[in-house]
Amino acid sequence: MPDGIVPSTLTPPPAIMTECSQPALWKNISDRKVADRKALLDQWPDWHLQEVTPESIKDISKIPISHLTAREYEIVHLDATGLVEAIRDRRYTSIEVLWAFCHVATIAQDLTNCLTEVFFGEGLKRAAELDKHLEETGEVVGPLHGLPISIKDHIMVKGHDTATGYIAWAYKTVASKDAVAVDILKKAGAVLYVKTANPQTLLALETNNNIYGRTSNPFNRSLTPGGSSGGESALIALHGSPMGIGTDIGGSIRIPAAHCGLYGLKGSVARMPHAGLMGSHDGMDAIIGALGPIATSARDLALFCRVMLQYQPWLIEPPLIEIPWKQEVVDGQGIPKRLSIAILWDDGVVKPHPPVLDALKRTKDALIRAGHEVIVWESVDHQESWDLLVRLPDKTLFSRWRRRVPNGGNPFTVAEIFKINLAREAFRAKITAHWNATEARTSTGRQVDAVLSPVAPTLAPPHDSTSWWGYTSYWNLMDFPGAVFPVDRFYAQDYRPLDISSDIKLPSQARNDTEKIILDQWDPAIYDNAPVCLQLVGRRLNEEKVLGMMQVVESAIGSARSGF
Amino acid sequence: MPDGIVPSTLTPPPAIMTECSQPALWKNISDRKVADRKALLDQWPDWHLQEVTPESIKDISKIPISHLTAREYEIVHLDATGLVEAIRDRRYTSIEVLWAFCHVATIAQDLTNCLTEVFFGEGLKRAAELDKHLEETGEVVGPLHGLPISIKDHIMVKGHDTATGYIAWAYKTVASKDAVAVDILKKAGAVLYVKTANPQTLLALETNNNIYGRTSNPFNRSLTPGGSSGGESALIALHGSPMGIGTDIGGSIRIPAAHCGLYGLKGSVARMPHAGLMGSHDGMDAIIGALGPIATSARDLALFCRVMLQYQPWLIEPPLIEIPWKQEVVDGQGIPKRLSIAILWDDGVVKPHPPVLDALKRTKDALIRAGHEVIVWESVDHQESWDLLVRLPDKTLFSRWRRRVPNGGNPFTVAEIFKINLAREAFRAKITAHWNATEARTSTGRQVDAVLSPVAPTLAPPHDSTSWWGYTSYWNLMDFPGAVFPVDRFYAQDYRPLDISSDIKLPSQARNDTEKIILDQWDPAIYDNAPVCLQLVGRRLNEEKVLGMMQVVESAIGSARSGF
Repeated sequence: MPDGIVPSTLTPPPAIMTECSQPALWKNISDRKVADRKALLDQWPDWHLQEVTPESIKDISKIPISHLTAREYEIVHLDATGLVEAIRDRRYTSIEVLWAFCHVATIAQDLTNCLTEVFFGEGLKRAAELDKHLEETGEVVGPLHGLPISIKDHIMVKGHDTATGYIAWAYKTVASKDAVAVDILKKAGAVLYVKTANPQTLLALETNNNIYGRTSNPFNRSLTPGGSSGGESALIALHGSPMGIGTDIGGSIRIPAAHCGLYGLKGSVARMPHAGLMGSHDGMDAIIGALGPIATSARDLALFCRVMLQYQPWLIEPPLIEIPWKQEVVDGQGIPKRLSIAILWDDGVVKPHPPVLDALKRTKDALIRAGHEVIVWESVDHQESWDLLVRLPDKTLFSRWRRRVPNGGNPFTVAEIFKINLAREAFRAKITAHWNATEARTSTGRQVDAVLSPVAPTLAPPHDSTSWWGYTSYWNLMDFPGAVFPVDRFYAQDYRPLDISSDIKLPSQARNDTEKIILDQWDPAIYDNAPVCLQLVGRRLNEEKVLGMMQVVESAIGSARSGF
Repeated sequence: MPDGIVPSTLTPPPAIMTECSQPALWKNISDRKVADRKALLDQWPDWHLQEVTPESIKDISKIPISHLTAREYEIVHLDATGLVEAIRDRRYTSIEVLWAFCHVATIAQDLTNCLTEVFFGEGLKRAAELDKHLEETGEVVGPLHGLPISIKDHIMVKGHDTATGYIAWAYKTVASKDAVAVDILKKAGAVLYVKTANPQTLLALETNNNIYGRTSNPFNRSLTPGGSSGGESALIALHGSPMGIGTDIGGSIRIPAAHCGLYGLKGSVARMPHAGLMGSHDGMDAIIGALGPIATSARDLALFCRVMLQYQPWLIEPPLIEIPWKQEVVDGQGIPKRLSIAILWDDGVVKPHPPVLDALKRTKDALIRAGHEVIVWESVDHQESWDLLVRLPDKTLFSRWRRRVPNGGNPFTVAEIFKINLAREAFRAKITAHWNATEARTSTGRQVDAVLSPVAPTLAPPHDSTSWWGYTSYWNLMDFPGAVFPVDRFYAQDYRPLDISSDIKLPSQARNDTEKIILDQWDPAIYDNAPVCLQLVGRRLNEEKVLGMMQVVESAIGSARSGF
């Protein structure tokens, strides 16, 4: 059990400068952080690419792995579960595993700007210790012995900065303790070696900040890798990390996972450890994020959760709910042989782009072929959920929408907060009743087991063009777990949308300004080579069931672990 | 599964008149409510006592049962579990069971003023239906078939007023729906027949309101039955109900249970259904109450919880945590044969009166004799926890303490609320670490399994003299489950405190004004005939373990179900 860690966030972080009165100083700090990172990477000059990759080359997804030895290539193509097994069986040493990932991470940084703090040396030292331990005792130190794991910047790692993209926090937020999740990872034997980029404020579905600038999508550098855990998704998609931890309060795990063709899980609040995150919204009860894994396989999502809960984090982090991990449910126990799945084709606010609808159509057909039942999820109150969500946190964080929210962005009074909390509860009760009511529409008389939904209305969009969070944030407001999984890749050439007219009737005209912007953005050429992912949503605190059902869905579409 | 009930509290209740500008009107409403209640009770004139009991008779605890037939007497002395079995086995009909409890409840009202809404007719009709169903089908409708249950006034029962002691709500809060817990009780076959008194605002540990006036303790009418669920405790102690539901945000189940010699359980927030309570603090996330049972046996507390969760209330009430009831834990699974229990002798703010210390001493000795381990619980921050607790809710509710709290009782801003929430989390982390650290002091190296604590520093105190909530409210702030159980009765004559000098060193002088008031209040004669109860506290969401351990403690002290 982790020893008594008091959440480190209780010490308030330095004030954020919302207006910078000293632009010169501002630029200096950014330059220094970038130079520090370069210096650390340059300690291993052989890992850098020797030639510059022209900006015009958009798909750089195969470049890092093309510079590996055969053995390195083999290593970085294993998932976390496979790596842990291989190290335990002494097929690889921890050192050589980390070496391969550091090699790729260096190139990944050069190509996508995905890293923040770099501590390869510390990681290699730890890996050497672990190898020695295994050799001497014949025992692993824990269930993640030797596994490299990357950490999103705002999660505290002892001895490293937690600048989180804020200039004002740079060099001032060196963590004196590990976040609870990081502490568990270390106890379990994981090896830490990098932290990854997130956008300033964290409340963005792209990744850009004043310290390091923008992170790009490895499959098409004109596109965003998503956010706020976008450093993670870019790095993992390039095989620069087998697994990373992100956080999700409106889509920040699921969107980057989807935009980079990965697996991601946003669990219910308080299921996974959450203490030790740097952020500007501590003490905010009304809406809380969830920490979770981004990985390259479905089974790795379960591995992460299983390990986290094995260490009984609820004994040291009071808000956590004591529900031990039920791996047997992930493995199928209690999951109906014939699933009833409701498909959310359209949320009533922004109709998804054709490749997203195609993915739903293909998955639907595959599910029906495999004997499952599929019905339509009637979307309810997506715009309303968004309007409510942006009122829940301290609105100073939502400066982008300040003019769009009531009260002109001024702080609410306590009475107003109570009212908004009541509206949140009314929303949850309404959608819960809506879900319960599906029992009238299934052939079994059972409520639907899951909702299959887009992750976003578009594939990874061009930088700075993300306009609608509703397909993810809706489930944050519900506090329902959502898992993202890859189903396809989009190629613009000769693209023809599937005919879904017999599946669902969708409007041909934009219903609002947001939808107009997104519909106008549709042009196959823009999204060329972007990954296509979907989201499976289950009921609150049923993370295991969601992962178990995801495997059933994957097996139906035959895409399980095919990778791309 | 209950059908989709949206929490009824979402419709804001009528405004509360904090200052009454129309005293005449105010009195009229009270008179009308009291007259209504009388008229309903007078429909069964035979149930009233034929003679008036003089005010000077303080112990009226045996009066109601002394007027029963032998069969009625037998019925009202069964606990809820026994009654359910007896009705299922057709040893009694539902009708005759309810009849007996209505008879006692009528006298209980006359003697202690514990009832608010009375609907014997509705209950008898339902009991008749249940009897018919059982006779015709041979089946019970549910696990509580025919069991009479009383309901605290602020919990909504369809068709009945939810005035909650507020004049302004009288006749205006007739519930259009049942609270979720009430809905489940009805589905399970329980029979409702009365609602019981609570104090205005609910935030009091006594029971007095402007509609009905004060409720008295059946064992000594100069004393309070406790509050806010004081109508329940007075009624159940007199055998006017086998089980009732109360709510607890600072002690409101545990204090009345303790002051009336009963069993009570305050579980962790969101374990039991909570939607459909009338109150003035809806939307308040910072501190939330818990609904739970008050009963005459330990096993009845588990019965209530088991039935509630059997109906999967989390499927309709979104905030609830999906943890099915683990009866096997209540029955001993996973509970160590040798318990390690820490005793909280003194909270550092108010030293308990001698009879409370005696009870701790006797229980300690019994535990050690039975082979368990007992260590001292070092109390931490009880005053601080109280100072924090009174800042969490909307402070307009805490008008009594308005001058004692910071900000002069004015509403906090959102930023202040965030800060207070952080302080709450820091408190929880600190006390959690303190609990974890007990592993260094037990012989097993295990953390203590439970804390054995007073429920209050005094036995049931004289009306209007309750001064310190710290022994109960502390565990609300921690969100740890606390179960109350009877251990003794206090008799003033020839009383001599036990010598505890070898168990614990306690200060002889008052450490603060509150303690001075309470120490000065000590006079055996005042508390004559008051019940003595203790509280067993476990870790968050471990309700089953607390109830399982309580049975072990009871068996050690040999008091299990001895009654008094």
